[in-house]
Amino acid sequence: MFIQIEPNTDVPIYTQLTQQIIEGIANGDIKSGESLPSVRSLAADLGVNMHTVNKSYHELEKKGLISILPKSGASVNAFNEKGKVSPQQLDYMEKLLRPAVAEGIVYGLEMNDFEEIIQRIIKKLQ
Amino acid sequence: MFIQIEPNTDVPIYTQLTQQIIEGIANGDIKSGESLPSVRSLAADLGVNMHTVNKSYHELEKKGLISILPKSGASVNAFNEKGKVSPQQLDYMEKLLRPAVAEGIVYGLEMNDFEEIIQRIIKKLQ
Repeated sequence: MFIQIEPNTDVPIYTQLTQQIIEGIANGDIKSGESLPSVRSLAADLGVNMHTVNKSYHELEKKGLISILPKSGASVNAFNEKGKVSPQQLDYMEKLLRPAVAEGIVYGLEMNDFEEIIQRIIKKLQ
Repeated sequence: MFIQIEPNTDVPIYTQLTQQIIEGIANGDIKSGESLPSVRSLAADLGVNMHTVNKSYHELEKKGLISILPKSGASVNAFNEKGKVSPQQLDYMEKLLRPAVAEGIVYGLEMNDFEEIIQRIIKKLQ
């Protein structure tokens, strides 16, 4: 698992960590069932506080992406097959995307602009 | 300007405020050139700390959506015409959307799912 923390940014370190783990799962670097490093070892590797890693892991757990068990630690959950998304997940994704889409509308983006951007992102995450 | 703050959520109040102002601009409730309420009066109306409103206004300023002038206060900037988006804004939007799109990919979303969700959001923001 390759994580790169950028200290000079507005994005909190735990959020950077969460996002990079999600991207790692999205692009297949981190597989379903795989164990994540222990909080202690990842914190030491990245030179960050254990609390930061802990906060990120709990955020991932809350999103249903990983499970945290007392003895065995954090492991990545099983995911849907491509295209088999539940209505609840679509609703959740709508909530998640809404602020950014609203901002894009203010900048004058139209449907085709959003499509282009999402296609670009999907390509980069492959 | 109708703002509704939800106290029992993970989303910080200043972020809720920022998002609702952006949605107000996106759906045309708040027009280009319009003045936003003073920090003091909006804080009093919403029953929140002045620091919270201030933080939200500065976030909107940083995004280039409003201007804050010492005497006249905050006012909404002029925007692009629909579809006239600069390459810089497309790059910025790519960064903004990337974490949510990565999360969607993990849930199994495909391009047509993203399209459906964005169309839903655009419809709701009209």
